Amino acid sequence: MADIFERLVTNYGPIGQYRDRAYGYYAFPRLEGELGSRMKFRGKDVVVWSLNNYLGLANHPEIRKVDAEASAQYGLAYPMGARMMSGNTTLHEQLEVELAAFEKKEDAILLNYGYQGIMSTIDAVCGRHDVIVYDAECHACIMDGMRMQLGHKFVFKHNDMSDFEKQMERATALIEKQGQGGILVISEGVFGMAGDQGKLKEIIDFKKKFEFRFLVDDAHGFGTLGKTGAGAGEEQDCQDGIDLYFSTFAKSMASIGGFLAGDKIIIDYIRYNIRSQIFAKSLPMPVVVGNLKRLHMLQTMPELKDKLWSNALRLQKGLKERGFDIGETNTPVTPVYMKGGVEEATAMVMDLRENYNIFASIVVYPVIPKGHIIYRLIPSAAHTDEDIDITLEAFSATKVKLDAGEYKVDDIPDMKQGAGRFEYLNPTD
Amino acid sequence: MADIFERLVTNYGPIGQYRDRAYGYYAFPRLEGELGSRMKFRGKDVVVWSLNNYLGLANHPEIRKVDAEASAQYGLAYPMGARMMSGNTTLHEQLEVELAAFEKKEDAILLNYGYQGIMSTIDAVCGRHDVIVYDAECHACIMDGMRMQLGHKFVFKHNDMSDFEKQMERATALIEKQGQGGILVISEGVFGMAGDQGKLKEIIDFKKKFEFRFLVDDAHGFGTLGKTGAGAGEEQDCQDGIDLYFSTFAKSMASIGGFLAGDKIIIDYIRYNIRSQIFAKSLPMPVVVGNLKRLHMLQTMPELKDKLWSNALRLQKGLKERGFDIGETNTPVTPVYMKGGVEEATAMVMDLRENYNIFASIVVYPVIPKGHIIYRLIPSAAHTDEDIDITLEAFSATKVKLDAGEYKVDDIPDMKQGAGRFEYLNPTD
Repeated sequence: MADIFERLVTNYGPIGQYRDRAYGYYAFPRLEGELGSRMKFRGKDVVVWSLNNYLGLANHPEIRKVDAEASAQYGLAYPMGARMMSGNTTLHEQLEVELAAFEKKEDAILLNYGYQGIMSTIDAVCGRHDVIVYDAECHACIMDGMRMQLGHKFVFKHNDMSDFEKQMERATALIEKQGQGGILVISEGVFGMAGDQGKLKEIIDFKKKFEFRFLVDDAHGFGTLGKTGAGAGEEQDCQDGIDLYFSTFAKSMASIGGFLAGDKIIIDYIRYNIRSQIFAKSLPMPVVVGNLKRLHMLQTMPELKDKLWSNALRLQKGLKERGFDIGETNTPVTPVYMKGGVEEATAMVMDLRENYNIFASIVVYPVIPKGHIIYRLIPSAAHTDEDIDITLEAFSATKVKLDAGEYKVDDIPDMKQGAGRFEYLNPTD
Repeated sequence: MADIFERLVTNYGPIGQYRDRAYGYYAFPRLEGELGSRMKFRGKDVVVWSLNNYLGLANHPEIRKVDAEASAQYGLAYPMGARMMSGNTTLHEQLEVELAAFEKKEDAILLNYGYQGIMSTIDAVCGRHDVIVYDAECHACIMDGMRMQLGHKFVFKHNDMSDFEKQMERATALIEKQGQGGILVISEGVFGMAGDQGKLKEIIDFKKKFEFRFLVDDAHGFGTLGKTGAGAGEEQDCQDGIDLYFSTFAKSMASIGGFLAGDKIIIDYIRYNIRSQIFAKSLPMPVVVGNLKRLHMLQTMPELKDKLWSNALRLQKGLKERGFDIGETNTPVTPVYMKGGVEEATAMVMDLRENYNIFASIVVYPVIPKGHIIYRLIPSAAHTDEDIDITLEAFSATKVKLDAGEYKVDDIPDMKQGAGRFEYLNPTD
């Protein structure tokens, strides 16, 4: 008979095992000062590449003004209770109407948090006879939503349309054998680690061959892609084929919460059957007012998206010219792929932070294969040419050291021991 | 081959089926004006009994001041990103330290939302060989957290210690047969529908007989129970036996987010392995500052809890004296049990709102057995004697009509058809 805690604390997991050395530096770092491209880390000014503040709205004076005024007007408590019971307001409804119109859908519902919102969306839509077909690199929240489902799930290799077709054939055969149920396909507008767009248009083309509905998590595409910023569906000219369009407000909108848009008939169904919204508190009013303002700025200030993209392209071009591998990104998300172990990665991160004043986040094994390192850089409209140039210089300088084997910290143990608990780990926040 | 949406929209569920008539009135009502015992509903002043604003903090001038100042100082965007990556601050850490001390635990972690926070807590703690033993009336978020788990679950009849013992024997036998795994018991400090406390002390006494860890969701107990307001564990003098103490900030604290407190060794494990926190945005800074202020007021102003309780007891005594059945509540949550169908319940709610200016929420079949109605009244420190007295009068007057069969709306269909999708439904928000 074992104590359930005892097993856990023998292995704190891939990151937790280093907690004594990692806390406050590699894990749970504290970035201080105004949100932007320059912040303070441990008292030092650094150029920050870790924030999904794509449009630079987080600290825009007009946003700050509205956030302050709405909080003064309503307080942070209002409204109280779940929306269905006592937490609804006309401004919640207005934001839904405006988001639906922006995404060219009939209706939308607000979600009090993106993570639980998409989890419960999957739950509300799928019954035990339904089948889910999903991209292998979907975000943790989609994985968690699917884990609540009793029906079959088929995973297709990331963005691999030949494997997608194969899995759809399997799913369709299963449904036919069952004699009941339908298929929900799930992918993302932008995969937040690698920065490549989901092949939405290609998937939608398969509606000619298979019967399915399509849920797209466009967390990183909303505000950054498409002519008007409406996201990956607009960018790929296939918005009509997306049956459920989801985005969080935690990236371009620099806020919290999220929304789901689609045909009125299904959004209305979800509105009355989505557990994390029916049984949990409504999005606070100042956040709703702040999100309305953010949406209006996103819609009326195309120069923000233009600046984001010119910064992203300058950064990506500079990295490629310097011989860095940035993979297949076709969005602002900029991964820099290098070879090395955890030791090298952590030592290089420290060197960048301490000696070059660059704050970037890394991803290593077991999230990606052993021996690889990804530095994930998130450019924003708030970055300057100077920010980009000194970052490029710093990466060049540290890569020389990495290639020369100078980053070696022998006393950091191998990460393999920690992999067990993280079968679903996928830090594409 | 069926369209997954087609099946859904043939049946909008127990509440959704009435959406055309319900929206804005029975479902998604809009309560306007300052949060308190008197608000506006459809332009009319009503006495409100639907808000979990137990201590009246939601609209307290000191809270409003701090909420406004913190939002002006930080904006609603800060910090950006998940805490582990880029969204940590010293004030997040300070709130954790203060909550741990208040709950007499070694450590605590903040959760960006209560619902996904407790779901991921269960997920972080339980592996596929572990067994969960839980009270039948646990909240929807606990049910959803358990649905992600592959291990066995045993449910015990609500607060039935003889059945608890039986289920623990089954769980223990299973673990011994498996040769691995441990047991997590889950109950609540206060069951939000009926207002009865969980039998925490009795469950903890079973630690002499069985080996298990105990997770308690004290959403409604935090701030309302115990000498210092530390909750049901303090009230029942068994806080030490609670291994994981959880509360949302959405009730007494009149905010959003939540926390989990326990021994440092396990909280630290959870900190590095709780998916909804690792992969989703941190609690916004003004909310953290506002929660610190709320916690300080909760700790230093015992008169708020005293006023809550004197209001609760006045309301409960008045209802009992008038012959109403309020069940077994031993907390401020005040359920009024009546007999009747959906027709009577909705007609009575409308009569209360339109003719007596009382805004209360109801629960009917399929959440509770057919033929029963619960009016759930949530008293708060913000209510006045006059609020209570006119409510008692209104209930007396409407009960006469209910008993005389005056509330009958024949064209509202039977709710049975909607029950299917709601096997987990338990609206104890």
